[in-house]
Amino acid sequence: MTVVSAASAGPAAPASPASPPALPASLDAHLVSEETRATLRVQSRMLAATRAFLTGQGFQELLPPVIGPVTDPGIRGSKQVDVDFYGHRYKLMTSAILYKQASLLAFDKIFYIAPNVRLEPLETAVTHRHLAEFHQIDVEIRDARREDAMAVAEALVSHVVAEVVRDLPAELELLGRDKDAFREVVTEAFGRVSHKEAVADLIALGHPQDPASEIDWEGEEIISAKASRPFFVVDYPKGSRGFYDCEHADTPGVLRNFDLIAPEGYGELASGSEREHDYATLVTRMRETGENPAKYGWYLDLARRGIPASSGFGIGLERFTRYVTGRSAVWQASAYPKLPGVVSA
Amino acid sequence: MTVVSAASAGPAAPASPASPPALPASLDAHLVSEETRATLRVQSRMLAATRAFLTGQGFQELLPPVIGPVTDPGIRGSKQVDVDFYGHRYKLMTSAILYKQASLLAFDKIFYIAPNVRLEPLETAVTHRHLAEFHQIDVEIRDARREDAMAVAEALVSHVVAEVVRDLPAELELLGRDKDAFREVVTEAFGRVSHKEAVADLIALGHPQDPASEIDWEGEEIISAKASRPFFVVDYPKGSRGFYDCEHADTPGVLRNFDLIAPEGYGELASGSEREHDYATLVTRMRETGENPAKYGWYLDLARRGIPASSGFGIGLERFTRYVTGRSAVWQASAYPKLPGVVSA
Repeated sequence: MTVVSAASAGPAAPASPASPPALPASLDAHLVSEETRATLRVQSRMLAATRAFLTGQGFQELLPPVIGPVTDPGIRGSKQVDVDFYGHRYKLMTSAILYKQASLLAFDKIFYIAPNVRLEPLETAVTHRHLAEFHQIDVEIRDARREDAMAVAEALVSHVVAEVVRDLPAELELLGRDKDAFREVVTEAFGRVSHKEAVADLIALGHPQDPASEIDWEGEEIISAKASRPFFVVDYPKGSRGFYDCEHADTPGVLRNFDLIAPEGYGELASGSEREHDYATLVTRMRETGENPAKYGWYLDLARRGIPASSGFGIGLERFTRYVTGRSAVWQASAYPKLPGVVSA
Repeated sequence: MTVVSAASAGPAAPASPASPPALPASLDAHLVSEETRATLRVQSRMLAATRAFLTGQGFQELLPPVIGPVTDPGIRGSKQVDVDFYGHRYKLMTSAILYKQASLLAFDKIFYIAPNVRLEPLETAVTHRHLAEFHQIDVEIRDARREDAMAVAEALVSHVVAEVVRDLPAELELLGRDKDAFREVVTEAFGRVSHKEAVADLIALGHPQDPASEIDWEGEEIISAKASRPFFVVDYPKGSRGFYDCEHADTPGVLRNFDLIAPEGYGELASGSEREHDYATLVTRMRETGENPAKYGWYLDLARRGIPASSGFGIGLERFTRYVTGRSAVWQASAYPKLPGVVSA
């Protein structure tokens, strides 16, 4: 693999969440490894369990778009990828959230297994939890409140973990993943803290978390490492997230959104929210977040005619797989890993 | 929708395979339509049946890449889409076939539901069977011969059709699709003709088919319309297909490949072949087909160290869906249709 930036690959290091291994020397070295094969078998089982769970609850699976005139505005400094579509500037999907909202015109509950491409900053190549190409389990529910979406995310994660623990003990053993780590995940309710509380905790611990921003990587790892089961962080401040996260009606400046954080230091698994769908509010929120409404032609046309109210979330599939399999870096949960700034297969 | 070329959308016309309807006026008009919803429910059932069938036969599902340094060289005049990956020129996958071959290092039988983007020529917007963004059911089998891959494709198509006919009669009825059309598909073996025979038939029918090329759109529709069940066309001439289609050892100039053609005028459903995997032959074949071997770095590195022998195929999911649902245009089988040259959602 060609390393574009010196920051993007370190020397070989012992495998643990805190010290990711070097990249594989080649795609074939990665693919023939017993650990890769076990990880991909677990991931495949996780997807099957996800599909069975969601279709059992009446969700319709759809195939998401890969390119389009507009995509979710990049978050946390990641960049969108432009493509030339017959002379028109299209984007690779960083998230198909706008399409999820539109699809509720056809079905009340939908999900995708959606590929996304985000050109994350070069320094994220060493966070051991960023991939430039990754997948989301993308869920959207018409006329649902934030709490409904959180309940689906919690039940889904518990179900998928329970199925892997039950059906793939040999894979977990090969990977050295102690299945006792999941006892609380499948038996106890996930915890819940507000963004404000999480910030206060971090500052008390000596971590300089900005109260106006998303929890930073280091902060997320700190609160994740303290937990023994997944938990939600809710109520992020306006300005830290996209224009489509709905604002609390009675608490201006606070969004009706959430992240789901894995325990044991694995960090964020999912992000979600109750969606803004009012045309005038969307235009205002776009302007507030520095987005040009003119770019969002089809979406705003649709919003003017009426987008359904909804809540939804996206679970990062490779991050979720990494957590379940206990791998030390997220790239180990991809058959063809693409790290920020690293030219590979 | 903005029509880039005058060729890309005609006036509203009666729905039949021979005269496609105009594009939907908007994404919401498309998504709220009962016909779209029924079609997408059928497609979802087809994907579930595909997964159950293939995993039941020991296939491992993997998630395909969306971008990479190299992709399948475009066929029939379609163009690849460039993307800038941290200053390196990557491509959107037109087909992930090279990655399928690599993945056989991890598993003996694999499949993807793979999104592909091909900038088809503007004139294909009116063939009613081209989409710029589409999906393939992508199958690859280690140490398999062409006939093994054909047997899997035949059994898979029969199984999927039988499941839809059994489980979704209301959807087929709503779409006006007579399920008697599928009687031979599920009970009789698919036919098989050579490319040479198909060319002779077409010329006898007055269609000027070039014997050195793939069957052209019109020719394919003619032979498809004459059939009452799917059939294979085998042994395409060298020069008409990609460098990875293996040549007959005893018949130089003829490839060990196949297309699967739907009956009733719906045209091509799938393409497949026994794969070339010998390093020196791959380099020679790349040069013969006008491809620069230097572009294929990771793939040729892998081939030098050893790619497994294999056969495989890709079924165009939206075309397959169109055939099963009897829709008049392939864009009707996509939630977010992207037609060549047409700017939409």
